[in-house]
Order: sequence, then C-alpha cells, then structure tokens
Amino acid sequence: MKLANRMKDLKPSDIREVGKIIAQKTGAISFAGGLPAPELFPAEKLDKVTQRLLQTNASEALQYGPTLGYGPLRGKIAELMSREGVVANVNNICITAGSQQALSLTTMMFLNPGDTVIVENPSYLGAFSAFQPFEVNFMGVDTDDDGMDIEKLEQVIKSTPSAKLIYVIPNFQNPTGRTWTLERRKQLLAIANKYDIAIMEDNAYGELAYEGERIPSLKSLDTEGKVMYLGSFSKILCPGFRVGWICAEANQIEKFELLKYGADLQNNQFSQMQIYEFLNSYDLDEHIAVIKSEYKIRRDLMLKVIEEKFPSEAKYIRPNGGMFVWMELPEHVNTRELLVKSLEKNIGFVPGGSFYAGGECENALRLNFSNMDREKIVEGMEILAQVLRDNI
Amino acid sequence: MKLANRMKDLKPSDIREVGKIIAQKTGAISFAGGLPAPELFPAEKLDKVTQRLLQTNASEALQYGPTLGYGPLRGKIAELMSREGVVANVNNICITAGSQQALSLTTMMFLNPGDTVIVENPSYLGAFSAFQPFEVNFMGVDTDDDGMDIEKLEQVIKSTPSAKLIYVIPNFQNPTGRTWTLERRKQLLAIANKYDIAIMEDNAYGELAYEGERIPSLKSLDTEGKVMYLGSFSKILCPGFRVGWICAEANQIEKFELLKYGADLQNNQFSQMQIYEFLNSYDLDEHIAVIKSEYKIRRDLMLKVIEEKFPSEAKYIRPNGGMFVWMELPEHVNTRELLVKSLEKNIGFVPGGSFYAGGECENALRLNFSNMDREKIVEGMEILAQVLRDNI
Repeated sequence: MKLANRMKDLKPSDIREVGKIIAQKTGAISFAGGLPAPELFPAEKLDKVTQRLLQTNASEALQYGPTLGYGPLRGKIAELMSREGVVANVNNICITAGSQQALSLTTMMFLNPGDTVIVENPSYLGAFSAFQPFEVNFMGVDTDDDGMDIEKLEQVIKSTPSAKLIYVIPNFQNPTGRTWTLERRKQLLAIANKYDIAIMEDNAYGELAYEGERIPSLKSLDTEGKVMYLGSFSKILCPGFRVGWICAEANQIEKFELLKYGADLQNNQFSQMQIYEFLNSYDLDEHIAVIKSEYKIRRDLMLKVIEEKFPSEAKYIRPNGGMFVWMELPEHVNTRELLVKSLEKNIGFVPGGSFYAGGECENALRLNFSNMDREKIVEGMEILAQVLRDNI
Repeated sequence: MKLANRMKDLKPSDIREVGKIIAQKTGAISFAGGLPAPELFPAEKLDKVTQRLLQTNASEALQYGPTLGYGPLRGKIAELMSREGVVANVNNICITAGSQQALSLTTMMFLNPGDTVIVENPSYLGAFSAFQPFEVNFMGVDTDDDGMDIEKLEQVIKSTPSAKLIYVIPNFQNPTGRTWTLERRKQLLAIANKYDIAIMEDNAYGELAYEGERIPSLKSLDTEGKVMYLGSFSKILCPGFRVGWICAEANQIEKFELLKYGADLQNNQFSQMQIYEFLNSYDLDEHIAVIKSEYKIRRDLMLKVIEEKFPSEAKYIRPNGGMFVWMELPEHVNTRELLVKSLEKNIGFVPGGSFYAGGECENALRLNFSNMDREKIVEGMEILAQVLRDNI
C-alpha cells in the first residue's frame, strides 16, 4: 500500500532519539530532553486531590467530557491568562493535549499544503514535527538577543506570499534561552497586522523566570485577534497529564473545537479535573516558586562549570529563565559527531542543527539544566568539558 | 486572516450538539451519546491503584514518556490482542488518544487530499469528523445483516481510483448494531488484497457481546499487513482516560510513531500507568462481565418497549452486543424534525442522517441503551413511543 505523500519527509525527532539511546544506558547523565525535575512534582498534593476525585466524583472524572475541555478548568485557565496581561473568559480557551497538539491544530487551522510557517532561527524542533505532516514549508528568520530580526522578517514575508503563520517563543526561548524585548514584540505585531498573518505565541517557559521583569505577552498586545497563545501545565505542574491550551478569540476557539473533535474528541477528562482540583486546593505560585528556586541553582551550577572548565571557544547564552543553555562552538566542530563521543562518556545533549529550519549551523548544542540533580549537573558538565577540550 | 481550505466544510458533530442541548435541560433522558454507564466505572479499584501509583512511582507517572506509549501497557495490549486471535507483541502497538486519534492518524498515514475513504453506509459519524480535515472524500457502501455488500464494494473500488482506505466496524456496528459474518470478513480481505487497499478495523464494541460466538477479527485473518486494528479502553474501562491503540505491522507502527509525535508527542502517561496497574491487579474479564450483564438488561428493556409500545411502522435491528439500537421510520418522517419534538419532551437521540456519508436517509435514528439506568430507559422509551405515534 502506498503511503500518503506527507509520510515521505517525516523523520524521528533528534530529542527523542537521543533520549532512547540514553534510556538504554545505566548511569547516563542527560542534558538532552526538556524534562522537568521529577522530584519536584507535587505528588502528595496530587494524591490528595486525586483520591477526593475518585471517591466523590468518579462518574464525571472517568466519563466523556466536552470537546473544548472541562469547563471549570477552562475558567481557571482564563484567570491564569491575566498573569500574561490577557483579559480572557472560558470562551477564549481550548484545552489541548499539551501545547504540542496546539501547534498541530493551529497549523491545520491556517495552513494549506505548500503554505509557509515562519520560525525563529533556531526554534523548537518538536514544532517542525508538528508542521511537517501538513506538507507546509518552514522558513527561519535569524534572531539576536532582543528577538527576531524584524527587518529580515519583513523581507521574508514580502518575498514569500505563501507565508501564513509566524511561530515564536518569546520567553526563555527553546533552544536559545533568549527573551524578546517589548519593542520587538510590538514590532512583530505591527508586521502581523500589516500583512494579515497569524502569530503562534508559545509560552511554555514564561513562568520559569529566575530574574528580570515579566514582559507583556504578544497576546496582551494583540488588538486584532492575530495571536494564538499556547500555554501548558507541562513545565509548571507535570507533563505526564498532557494538558495545554490555546487562548484565542471566541470565534477562533469555535473553529478549534471542530479540529479538536476530529483529532481526538477531547482531552483526558480525569487529568483535567486533577489539575482543576489541584489549582483549587493549593497555591500554584507557591509551587512555581519551589521549581524556580531549584532550577535557578541548577542553571547557576551549569554556568559555573562552563565558565570555569569549558574551553574559551565555547560561546554560550546566559538564560534568565526556562530550561536551556545554548552553546556555539567553533565552526569546524560538528556537534552531531561530538554527541557520539559524548555518549561514549554517558553524557547526552541535543545537537544544535536540529533546531534550524534549514538544518544549517552544525556547531551548536542545547543543554538542559532542569532534569538532572545538582551533583549530576556538575559531574556531567565536567565530563562534557573534557569531551570538548579533546575535540575542539 | 484566511483560514485553511480544510476549515470550509467542517461542521459540529450532531452527537455533540444534541449532547450540549441535553446537558442544559434538567431531568432529560438521553439516548443520544455513546456513553458508558458511569455507575459501572471501577472507581474503588482505580482509587487503589492510583494511590499506589502516586505514592510509589509518581516521578515516572507524571513525567514525559515514550511516544508510542508506556512500554508495559503496550505489552499488555499485545496480550489482549490474542482475544481477537491476533499474535502481537509490543512492537505492533501504538497507544493513541482514544480510537478517535487512531482514525485521524490512519487517515494521515494513507490518504492525500482528494483521496477516498470507503465507509459502511451508515457508519460512525465521528469518523467522518476525523477524515474531513484531511480534505478526503468518503463514499458509503450499503450494508445488510451480514456486513458490507461486497459486490457493491468492488464496483466502487473499480470506479474510484482514489480509494485508498476502507473503514469498517465489524462487531456491533455503530450505529446499526450489526455484526459481520466470517464469510463477509474473508471477502473484504480478499478485496483489500486484490486491490492493495488498507483496511481500518474499528473494534470499540467487540467485547460487549450479549449473545453469539466471537467471530475472528479482520486483523486475525490478515496475512498481508493490510489491516490497521483500532482498539479502545473507552467502552470496557472508561472513556475519560482517552486511551486507545492501533495494532499493525511493526514497520507501520514506526510510521505511526512519527505522526503521533507531531500530533501530541505522546499519550497521557499517568492514565496509561493507571490502566496498566488496573489490568495487573484486577481481572478485566470479571469487570467486562459486570458491564455486559447490565447492558444486556438495558438493551432488553429498550427492545421490550419498542415491541410493545412503538408503532409497527418503526423497524429496528436487534443488536447482539454493543450500545445501540438502529431504527428506521417510514420515509416521510424526518428524524431531525422529530428530534426537535422529542427534545421538547426531554428525550434525546441522534438522527440517522448524520451517519450517512452522503447525508441521505433522513428517516432513521440511533438509540443508545448503555448510558441511562433501567427506569429511565423504560420511562424515556415510553415517551418516545408517544412522540412517534403523534408524528408518524
């Protein structure tokens, strides 16, 4: 049987492939995946609310529920949006299977085969995997410390009539850790309005700020309904529940409902209610504070080893939040080859080339600091320093 | 912003729309949705295994997991496949967000825009919603008490070069309740092999048999890897977890992994582990026996009211299993109009026209007997009998 054309160019995610190799090694230290610290999951609190749920409301929690999500949780999420300066109500929220599904549904909503998504260069590689099955093109626009290069963006839009969507991660970007300035955000919106192009604002990491002021979200600056805001509980609660959301105009959410219904009818009802009960019973800010305090320490430990032990040719970006340190090595170093050597020493990372729309830039790497404990960060980074010294 | 072409023809599911209306009425009796009986969910047992999970293995249960699903659950599902006469191992299983997602991913795997899915006439309307966003056509082939009309099927295939996939529900079909004979199953496979077309075998209801022998699944008869078998825990455990699966050849499962990754990275890890622990700790057959015993009583009560109180012009199919009774009224009766009158009396059902690929046949209706308790079935069916008598 012939497969559909879309299957032709699909290939496994480098993150997941590195993860599979690491899972088979004992004692490996992984800076590869974007995994939260499992020891910080609020297991006891979730145990309490889950028991209550199963003992008092199992018939609702285990049953089918609405396509757009569990109503009370949608309401809570609408309230959470005020943290991002967005005035929203339940009709502005569609709950999705993590923000990954939101990437997929937004692509479906706006793009025909042959259309183009504009992404930051580099950008989250899982987003490429969400776009690809819809046979769209993606095109990278370079970024600097302030965000996307807006002049280049406008050039690309002018020369690419098929451009229909711009995908950005303005806070503690994956993979670079960079945060867009307010000025750039305003410029991006002006461009989107001028050329009538939708924006997908992925804010998976916004709550994980270790320093600096919160900068208004694109959605909070959006006066024309151009921004599809993607949020997630994966990094602030746990990823195992697969609960994320889209915040958009109510008439857009009605369209997302049709796509969500076709894709999987609805999200896991049980986990939506677990999260609702958790938010209702405990202080989310208190929990986020615990995560931030630990991740900040881990980031600082990672940066300390880099400063003290890495060869000076390794250039890196100091992130003010999120989960990643981005590093560029001299151009002659191929980090896919470096990974092979690093894995021999039981250390994993993701080669930077995977994050580029065009596959260019093979001399960078992404290091995650949230998943390993403090000791392993120091131990693993010291080994990696040695691998680098041996191979630069 | 212009939406993608696929958004043009999408419309809300009639099942969900009727459900929304009913949810707003107090004391309504619904024969509309395909909902299980919530009072039969094994809440206490799930409470026990869930507590154990959160107290002993929260760091795995709340974390990201593999794209194809939680390994031990994939193994258990492979074992379950032996009930259908299928020899499978972990590499033959991709866990999906209910079988709805399996419908969507299988469409993506085999169909280009403009290609055609052949469906039973009538068929599950949620499947149409899964197909539509991929801009495919669907074409219905009439069925009789033994299954699809194979001669007509072959004619359609011969005259439709774009036909790439045949979607069938061989056991206790939704909406008709019919079950395919072994002979028809073999004929279908012969056709699929002859014309090199993939089959999607949806077996959501197979375990809910109230009488009769189990007939071998299409997958068990499949010697050429043509059948994508779709299974689900929604009807035998609970739908709130959204856990279903695809059973296919290992090299096909590798392709599904790429689609699943793009669509949502992976299923809810927590609920996969809940189900695994449930299957490991309790006897699934014992639980299914409880469900079957109650549903059989409810079916019999529904049929009794039909026999005794419905006008004789109402022709219905007696189902040997599943959740639905299919009824055809005289041709002049439009069941969409009938529904309006029925809802005035607080009774819901799904008009039959929704289940036809071409929208023909507006004089049928689908009645669900699993979700309402015995008293409500009798009460609601008696009211519906009166509505029919007043409107035929």
